[in-house]
Amino acid sequence: MSLSFGARLRTVLDEHGPLCVGIDPHAALLDAWGLPQTAEGVRAFGLTVIEAAAGRVGMVKPQVSFFERFGSRGFAALEDVFTAARAAGLLVIADAKRGDIGTTMAGYAQAWLEPGAPLESDALTISPYLGGGSLAEAIARALPVGKGVFVLAATSNPEGAPLQTALVQHGRTDEPQETVALRVTRDVTALDPHDGALGSVGLVIGATIDRSRFALDDNTLRTVPLLAPGFGAQGATPDDLRLRFGTLAGNVLASESRSILSAGPDRIAATIDERAARYQEVMGG
Amino acid sequence: MSLSFGARLRTVLDEHGPLCVGIDPHAALLDAWGLPQTAEGVRAFGLTVIEAAAGRVGMVKPQVSFFERFGSRGFAALEDVFTAARAAGLLVIADAKRGDIGTTMAGYAQAWLEPGAPLESDALTISPYLGGGSLAEAIARALPVGKGVFVLAATSNPEGAPLQTALVQHGRTDEPQETVALRVTRDVTALDPHDGALGSVGLVIGATIDRSRFALDDNTLRTVPLLAPGFGAQGATPDDLRLRFGTLAGNVLASESRSILSAGPDRIAATIDERAARYQEVMGG
Repeated sequence: MSLSFGARLRTVLDEHGPLCVGIDPHAALLDAWGLPQTAEGVRAFGLTVIEAAAGRVGMVKPQVSFFERFGSRGFAALEDVFTAARAAGLLVIADAKRGDIGTTMAGYAQAWLEPGAPLESDALTISPYLGGGSLAEAIARALPVGKGVFVLAATSNPEGAPLQTALVQHGRTDEPQETVALRVTRDVTALDPHDGALGSVGLVIGATIDRSRFALDDNTLRTVPLLAPGFGAQGATPDDLRLRFGTLAGNVLASESRSILSAGPDRIAATIDERAARYQEVMGG
Repeated sequence: MSLSFGARLRTVLDEHGPLCVGIDPHAALLDAWGLPQTAEGVRAFGLTVIEAAAGRVGMVKPQVSFFERFGSRGFAALEDVFTAARAAGLLVIADAKRGDIGTTMAGYAQAWLEPGAPLESDALTISPYLGGGSLAEAIARALPVGKGVFVLAATSNPEGAPLQTALVQHGRTDEPQETVALRVTRDVTALDPHDGALGSVGLVIGATIDRSRFALDDNTLRTVPLLAPGFGAQGATPDDLRLRFGTLAGNVLASESRSILSAGPDRIAATIDERAARYQEVMGG
């Protein structure tokens, strides 16, 4: 029995702090870095970020879309980036937002979370439009082998709120209504028996949202890893970590991409150092 | 300016009828077909289905997850399947259910819908948990180059209904509330100016659902292509096409996978012929 993802994540958060470095080789950044718009370009970009991140932070989050646009060659580049990251001791969160049902969803878990798979990562972001319960087969495959998932719950993009704050109809008037984000949260965390320690089924929660609109209170989230994009260029600061997440701050993965990547290949290591130190300071590390 | 996806789809539906053959090489089917659990296995499976489908139906729907589990080699196999399908004149709907925001979502459109891309298809299934509007960049890239999308709306798996029928909060009491499925439908079809002809932004709608629960009436869907999984092994019959979709039946892509694929490599062509004829009969073709 391998250590759970939640337990491994707890160690990484305690040792390295909350900063998670995004790897987003979009076209403008490849240009800025002087790299070609090819699979070779995204491979070189990814490997450079890994080299800079190793020893400075505990986690990286490659954005799969930017590799996928080069087809099978882009995925071969992503495999190399994952291999380098895991060899460097970094926890790899594959940001792919996969979502389907039954054996099809199980296929995505096999692709990203099965030990020995070419795209093996430590955790995968997944999307619950087909219902939190539709993700059960992926979660059932991930947990026993020490892998985790982060389920989209309450995101910071404005188009997301109408759907994620919509109220589930249950046909009873004597019970409070629940938001979609809360329903998803309840459905997926129920699949993770983690006994009070940090769980292996996490959520994606925007750093800048007003959680009360989504009805996601501290008690519901107490042992849930929270992957929070929106730090850095998108507006949230290290101080917001304490301010917005309060007692949950210790379970947050603060994801920064543009603010770090735009430093360019020569300045990225120093930028990661600076940013990581700021989070450690806020967290009292 | 290329012909729109909706126009191309109209021609295919009129000429070949509604049957869309799924390509779902999951583990049990590979075993049943005597194929290895490898990228070579899914390639051989896919190419055999394409050979059987060519000339018998107008469309195929490869399920990306089952290729993805073999990493970059699985995607190379999928590229070969797509190339063979398009060379055979089949419309290819990549069932990948991708969903993200902004430039990340644009990356998925580049991957699957850009002419000349290694994974070029005719249409891509996409997922709107981040809001219908979050998919705008993908739709904006797809339409001008004659490509289409199918957005998850109202699905037949039971775990999907609580989320998809949830009511969007708009804070006004004088207007009717709308379901998530309806809101998504409105948001994405508004991005497709198609002037009364069949559109290029379609929806995924389960074949067996009660559409009234999702508030998706005929008027809202009149010019929207409807990709309907659930035919065949999952319970819906060719007769259900008329029965459940009524005046919309002519815009439905009836997707069958298991019922056809379980015939095995030797019987699949004959099975496709039989099934296609049954749909043509129902549709009066």
